[in-house]
Amino acid sequence: MIIHPFGGGVASAHGLGKNHLGGKGANLHEMAGIGLPVPPGFVIPTPVCADHYAAGGTLPPALLPEIAAGIGHIETAVASGARFGDADHPLLVSVRSGARVSMPGMMDTVLNLGLNDATVLGLAARSGDARFAWDSYRRFVQMYGDVVLGIDHYLFEDALEYAKEDKGVSLDTELDADDLKALVAAYLGIVEREQGAPFPQDVTAQLHGAVAAVFGSWRSERADVYRRLNDIPEDWGTAVTVQAMVFGNRGETSATGVAFTRDPSTGERGYYGEYLLNAQGEDVVAGIRTPQYLTRAAREKAGAKAASMEEALPVVYAELAALFDLLERHYRDMQDIEFTVEQGKLFVLQTRSGKRTAKAALKIACDMVEEGLIDQRTAILRVDPAMLDQMLHPTLDPAAKRDVIVRGLPASPGAASGAIVLDSETAEKRAAMGEDVILVRVETSPEDIAGMHAARGILTARGGMTSHAAVVARGMGRPCVSGAGNLAIDMNARSVRFGGVELAEGAVITLDGANGEVMRGTVATVQPELTGDFARLMLWADAHRTMAVRTNAETPADCATARSFGAEGIGLARTEHMFFSPERIVSVREMILAADEAGRRAALAKLLPAQREDFRAIFGIMAGLPVTVRLLDPPLHEFLPQREADFADVADATGVGVDVLKRRNAELHEFNPMLGHRGCRLGVTFPEIYEMQARAIFEAAVAVAQEAGVAPLPEVMVPLVGTRRELTLMKAVIDAAAEAVFAETGVRVPYLVGTMIELPRAALRAGEIAEDAEFFSFGTNDLTQTTLGISRDDASRFLGVYVDKGIYAHDPFVTLDVDGVGELVRIAAERGRAARPGLKLGICGEHGGDPASIAFCQTLGLDYVSCSPWRVPIARLAAAQAALR
Amino acid sequence: MIIHPFGGGVASAHGLGKNHLGGKGANLHEMAGIGLPVPPGFVIPTPVCADHYAAGGTLPPALLPEIAAGIGHIETAVASGARFGDADHPLLVSVRSGARVSMPGMMDTVLNLGLNDATVLGLAARSGDARFAWDSYRRFVQMYGDVVLGIDHYLFEDALEYAKEDKGVSLDTELDADDLKALVAAYLGIVEREQGAPFPQDVTAQLHGAVAAVFGSWRSERADVYRRLNDIPEDWGTAVTVQAMVFGNRGETSATGVAFTRDPSTGERGYYGEYLLNAQGEDVVAGIRTPQYLTRAAREKAGAKAASMEEALPVVYAELAALFDLLERHYRDMQDIEFTVEQGKLFVLQTRSGKRTAKAALKIACDMVEEGLIDQRTAILRVDPAMLDQMLHPTLDPAAKRDVIVRGLPASPGAASGAIVLDSETAEKRAAMGEDVILVRVETSPEDIAGMHAARGILTARGGMTSHAAVVARGMGRPCVSGAGNLAIDMNARSVRFGGVELAEGAVITLDGANGEVMRGTVATVQPELTGDFARLMLWADAHRTMAVRTNAETPADCATARSFGAEGIGLARTEHMFFSPERIVSVREMILAADEAGRRAALAKLLPAQREDFRAIFGIMAGLPVTVRLLDPPLHEFLPQREADFADVADATGVGVDVLKRRNAELHEFNPMLGHRGCRLGVTFPEIYEMQARAIFEAAVAVAQEAGVAPLPEVMVPLVGTRRELTLMKAVIDAAAEAVFAETGVRVPYLVGTMIELPRAALRAGEIAEDAEFFSFGTNDLTQTTLGISRDDASRFLGVYVDKGIYAHDPFVTLDVDGVGELVRIAAERGRAARPGLKLGICGEHGGDPASIAFCQTLGLDYVSCSPWRVPIARLAAAQAALR
Repeated sequence: MIIHPFGGGVASAHGLGKNHLGGKGANLHEMAGIGLPVPPGFVIPTPVCADHYAAGGTLPPALLPEIAAGIGHIETAVASGARFGDADHPLLVSVRSGARVSMPGMMDTVLNLGLNDATVLGLAARSGDARFAWDSYRRFVQMYGDVVLGIDHYLFEDALEYAKEDKGVSLDTELDADDLKALVAAYLGIVEREQGAPFPQDVTAQLHGAVAAVFGSWRSERADVYRRLNDIPEDWGTAVTVQAMVFGNRGETSATGVAFTRDPSTGERGYYGEYLLNAQGEDVVAGIRTPQYLTRAAREKAGAKAASMEEALPVVYAELAALFDLLERHYRDMQDIEFTVEQGKLFVLQTRSGKRTAKAALKIACDMVEEGLIDQRTAILRVDPAMLDQMLHPTLDPAAKRDVIVRGLPASPGAASGAIVLDSETAEKRAAMGEDVILVRVETSPEDIAGMHAARGILTARGGMTSHAAVVARGMGRPCVSGAGNLAIDMNARSVRFGGVELAEGAVITLDGANGEVMRGTVATVQPELTGDFARLMLWADAHRTMAVRTNAETPADCATARSFGAEGIGLARTEHMFFSPERIVSVREMILAADEAGRRAALAKLLPAQREDFRAIFGIMAGLPVTVRLLDPPLHEFLPQREADFADVADATGVGVDVLKRRNAELHEFNPMLGHRGCRLGVTFPEIYEMQARAIFEAAVAVAQEAGVAPLPEVMVPLVGTRRELTLMKAVIDAAAEAVFAETGVRVPYLVGTMIELPRAALRAGEIAEDAEFFSFGTNDLTQTTLGISRDDASRFLGVYVDKGIYAHDPFVTLDVDGVGELVRIAAERGRAARPGLKLGICGEHGGDPASIAFCQTLGLDYVSCSPWRVPIARLAAAQAALR
Repeated sequence: MIIHPFGGGVASAHGLGKNHLGGKGANLHEMAGIGLPVPPGFVIPTPVCADHYAAGGTLPPALLPEIAAGIGHIETAVASGARFGDADHPLLVSVRSGARVSMPGMMDTVLNLGLNDATVLGLAARSGDARFAWDSYRRFVQMYGDVVLGIDHYLFEDALEYAKEDKGVSLDTELDADDLKALVAAYLGIVEREQGAPFPQDVTAQLHGAVAAVFGSWRSERADVYRRLNDIPEDWGTAVTVQAMVFGNRGETSATGVAFTRDPSTGERGYYGEYLLNAQGEDVVAGIRTPQYLTRAAREKAGAKAASMEEALPVVYAELAALFDLLERHYRDMQDIEFTVEQGKLFVLQTRSGKRTAKAALKIACDMVEEGLIDQRTAILRVDPAMLDQMLHPTLDPAAKRDVIVRGLPASPGAASGAIVLDSETAEKRAAMGEDVILVRVETSPEDIAGMHAARGILTARGGMTSHAAVVARGMGRPCVSGAGNLAIDMNARSVRFGGVELAEGAVITLDGANGEVMRGTVATVQPELTGDFARLMLWADAHRTMAVRTNAETPADCATARSFGAEGIGLARTEHMFFSPERIVSVREMILAADEAGRRAALAKLLPAQREDFRAIFGIMAGLPVTVRLLDPPLHEFLPQREADFADVADATGVGVDVLKRRNAELHEFNPMLGHRGCRLGVTFPEIYEMQARAIFEAAVAVAQEAGVAPLPEVMVPLVGTRRELTLMKAVIDAAAEAVFAETGVRVPYLVGTMIELPRAALRAGEIAEDAEFFSFGTNDLTQTTLGISRDDASRFLGVYVDKGIYAHDPFVTLDVDGVGELVRIAAERGRAARPGLKLGICGEHGGDPASIAFCQTLGLDYVSCSPWRVPIARLAAAQAALR
């Protein structure tokens, strides 16, 4: 036998697998194999596809009797007496493609095959529904005409529009059986006119044509493009599945529905689903009728009247319920089942792992471990880490009313309500007085950091998912809606126009960072619950992962949050984030605008105590754990004064005239600040800056060691290194500061000096850099920018088009570009470890919180990943999955 | 024997080489070996250095008798009766270090060793110059005190200052013999006070101490750093050379001088040099006496009175002249000789290849081939390609008077005079009327291209050697002086202040791009001569090189210049350079600011005929040769309007309001334009732009094929590709345009489609990109920017410090960073050729004209290098040298 029948107790090729049967054919055989009542059918396996092409695009002659035998199997197995082409009791079949891997929408399908001018009458009589029969025939002619005969589908659609216009109606459903019968005649006319021959009335000819068309669609242009993009070899070919159509609309003992083996929103065990009596699947989609409950209990709980399936079709319901255990035992997961009941006979059309909420996913995974259905490893692998994001932030009460006034992008999850504030200073002032505020800006810049931190949430008019606002908000765990195009800020009037609604500063709004909605007033929120199943799964994950999880944080609040989420240290403390507070920014500006080293040292001396206290707070929280502190990194002009008042402040502090400051300011302008005077280039040209920072670190570490009795492990990180010598020079400055502090205090603490690998050159020269570096932290944000030559801040104008056109599968700033950036990370890891066995390796870019990127880090054997506090649990789970895979 | 004596007819270790004898010792043995009268001496070879350290920093006992024997050899060979430590007729020696490779200034030297309180009197008597004797002793005590005894040299210098103050003089030379004698006493007192023991009067002890000190200096801190930076193994060690001091100041039969075997400025064969009777080398340096001519002919030509050496010391002169042939036959190169005559006896102190002008280098190389001294290959290798730069541009007549008013950086070679113009438009207008103009700007931007082209030279107040002005000027072959800090432009007064001189626009100035000088008025220039020796050497070079040399050019004038310089095609025609002319820029701006594709197409339709004519002109000049055309590359905002009038022009052309244009303008602002919406990202998002450009290329190619009967080979280059798919998409647009033009005209021309490799990702993914690309051109400017993360436009603030601190050996935008960028180029070349054997590879960054980078390209097997027209001869020679090495 070339073909493989299934159904009616047969699963002739169960176990042959997807490569031979295609994904769909293999699934159907598996279902049939475990005894599920699938509609019978047969699979023409994938090797026949090549034979078809070898035969010049015609069906191999040997296949034809096999197809006939397959139809015979279906007729027997369906057991209703229906026969293919029988005018009285016609059997209808579907013809579907099925490759080894899913290629959604790429290949063709034909439904309702077996209808012709004679069998349509039989179907009408048997179903007692002439409208259904003619509608099925109409759809079949259109689908067959389009897919098999290559007739432009607009012709059919136009004819349908004319028919509705003639009748003066607007919906397809308003056409009755006679209208549809007339439409079928029109369709058949179109086919005859277009192909110069009548529509095939012979059902076997129909079937051969459809099978050939499905094989042909394997090499359609869109399928070719899809295969090239997804690296699918052309010689795999597609299988074809021919299967009996079953109908849930054959009277009051027929029905259609969906069922879940557990509740997909809570995870509770129990039958769950909905159905419609005497209906086809389309009826649900069309929204004409409201689906009814599956169980009596659910019906009663909802106070609904229409009979539940348990009540209306008790025998079939019992049969269905009995399958639930079978399904869970076999698939070991919660299943989502599509079923149809045709005149009292239950058919399972499809079963698959059911989609579920994060909460349900956790509960199901934990329950199944308890039930012995799965082990801990499987439970860990079963929960999508990205889903946890929903659970880690307050969310809006789904029951609360929402008065949406504008929509933007869901840039950072969580929900928050507060008074509108229009600048950072106001945000800080009002927040300091205990008010909840939402910072509303056209876009944010590093100067807004303090205001963003003070605010409960951030709303911007411009910027995408990777804008400054979005990135910083995610890092801080603040909900953020960005790029709300319909939002206009009037700074003079201190008000905001949300489309048609104008609100003054101080008016209360609510942000939903999960879907980008902005609402007027306060909307009730639900707090996350991180105990129970969540906590249990996290413990299992921790037991299985090999990579540590650290956090990117520099405020005491964020550090504390991260520890509560399970962070095992800090992978990135960005010292520049500490420079923006009002009491420090003047000294920072004084340092930048200083004309010489003496001027810089004077300003640095004012900053030293503040930096030391920052580190002391962090080290106190992280005592005993590693803390990677990155020395000053960003282009200095991020700190530059912009307003007259800013210049006046610096002039006051330094006694240098505003004119001189402005000239120096202008001199610091850069065309491409990302590639400019930043990172260790600052340290090389002005070593006194790094000297002050290193001193602050060591003074703080010594103080914590003395106070807490436990020293932190400071890992001093030199940013933007491109050559070994930069690190050699900066390490000397750091070591000298350490020795000076140890000598002054009489206390030594252990520490490491290392570098961020964030330039392609650094990755390539990692071997020699590792001779000076005791650790590498991969700064994949900047490494992505330089490797791809894309500025994250400027990418919005083309990156969307790039993802749409398949140039990048994902935003490379969200998921690591493994082929490009990833190769450099791999090269650096290999060369670094070859030069210094045991070199500590971690990642601290945004990718450190992205599950796909974490999986890649595992393959490289990194020691840790570091991410924002609110993604620590996600990273813990993703790291465990990566270790298990 | 451990030691190796030389001189006096002995060359005991001639041929043992540098590894054993050190560089200096090997040279002395070589000179002695061919019979040159070198002052006698002996070498303590490098292996003894390790013995010295093994013995805890003391001289191995076995060495001491050998040193004594060496001194005996010197006494014999010097044949003057002088003996080491003899109070009546003392022999003085020098003790010098000498490693395998030169480590200039890193290790120690002691001169005049052998002087003490007794021998100084003998030296005074023998030389008849008490001042000289006491000054020699003073210098010896200071040098020995510093180097051997470790006494701070400031102590001696202070004592010298006091001595001059006491006498009320300011120059050392104003101290007489008695003063110096007193100073020696003071010095000896310093030594005794500092080391607690008197200065060693025993000459053998002096010698042992000096040898040990030289060995010790091998491991000094500065030598350690130097070795680490230059990868010199510590175990090589240094040799020590002990050699007789000879004196040219022992009366009227003594002399000192330098001689060249050929004229170093013209290359003419003939004795050339200068000397001083009865003088030491220092006397020349101190500038007290004017050196005299070597030959009588030279003296007479110069009208000088002082006797030439030929006249004053005819016997020794004849002896010296006889050595010239010997030296050239042995070294096969023009030699620069230092000699001393001590009481009628000639000593050659040093001989080395003489420095020479470019003109002399060419003449000497060609003459020596004719004379049979060297072969063509050696002649090619003998000329430094970088020197040719001097010869390819007009230079200022060295005899002309210069009224220098300001100095800047020598940013682009050549010299030019013209009227000051302060903006591009004025430059174009006045140049169009036939006036020579010099464009003077604070700094230049892409908008100045047309003005720079119209000008004879460019002068800027800001910007370094790799600023926009410098790079573009070099590309155009215009002389440029950049970064003239003392220059202030007053645009209102239309005048320029050069330090203290103010000149109005229109005043004539002259630039010397070779040294950065700016002069008032016109200074006469000398035109380059590219025939004769130059042409001959170029032909030899062409016969030996394997890489083709193309040019980066897009104007007909530059293309013609490049062909005259020997360019074999165009490696980079930058289409955007064609967009700045006044009649086109409005359409370009219209295209950029268009709200939709229709608007862009309307603007592109206006640009098409102009682009076609551009290509037609280029293809006409380059018929039969490959022409690589890069499609639009730079960030669009480089073309954006800036002045109100610009906006008004675009508003007039499009009917769109200025407000709308300004808003769109603001939207196009980018933070990091280098990493922004540019290159093929423009083509991917707005395919109609590349479609227009491709059409213009093919229409022009077809037209030239029809007119000239010879088609050019257009190589259409897609810039800034980072993924294969970008190229796939753009290649489809280009191929479609080609097919359309071929169908319309009925003529086909061959063409290639390829890409620039200028992003690290493209280099890494070169294997898959090569599946679509028929050629790669390495855009090493951008590849350097992204690999190193350095914006060329912003690098000036730190790159100088970086080169000073040894972080980069050279400016990586001038000489390719082989270790970093070079590895990516190698990876791309290997992966590209593995995927597509025969893939055409070239380089079109600024590095394509840099000899060191060209040598690297040769190692990778590139097919061609491409550089600015004025560097084509340099590249031809450098490519030949690379092939021969």
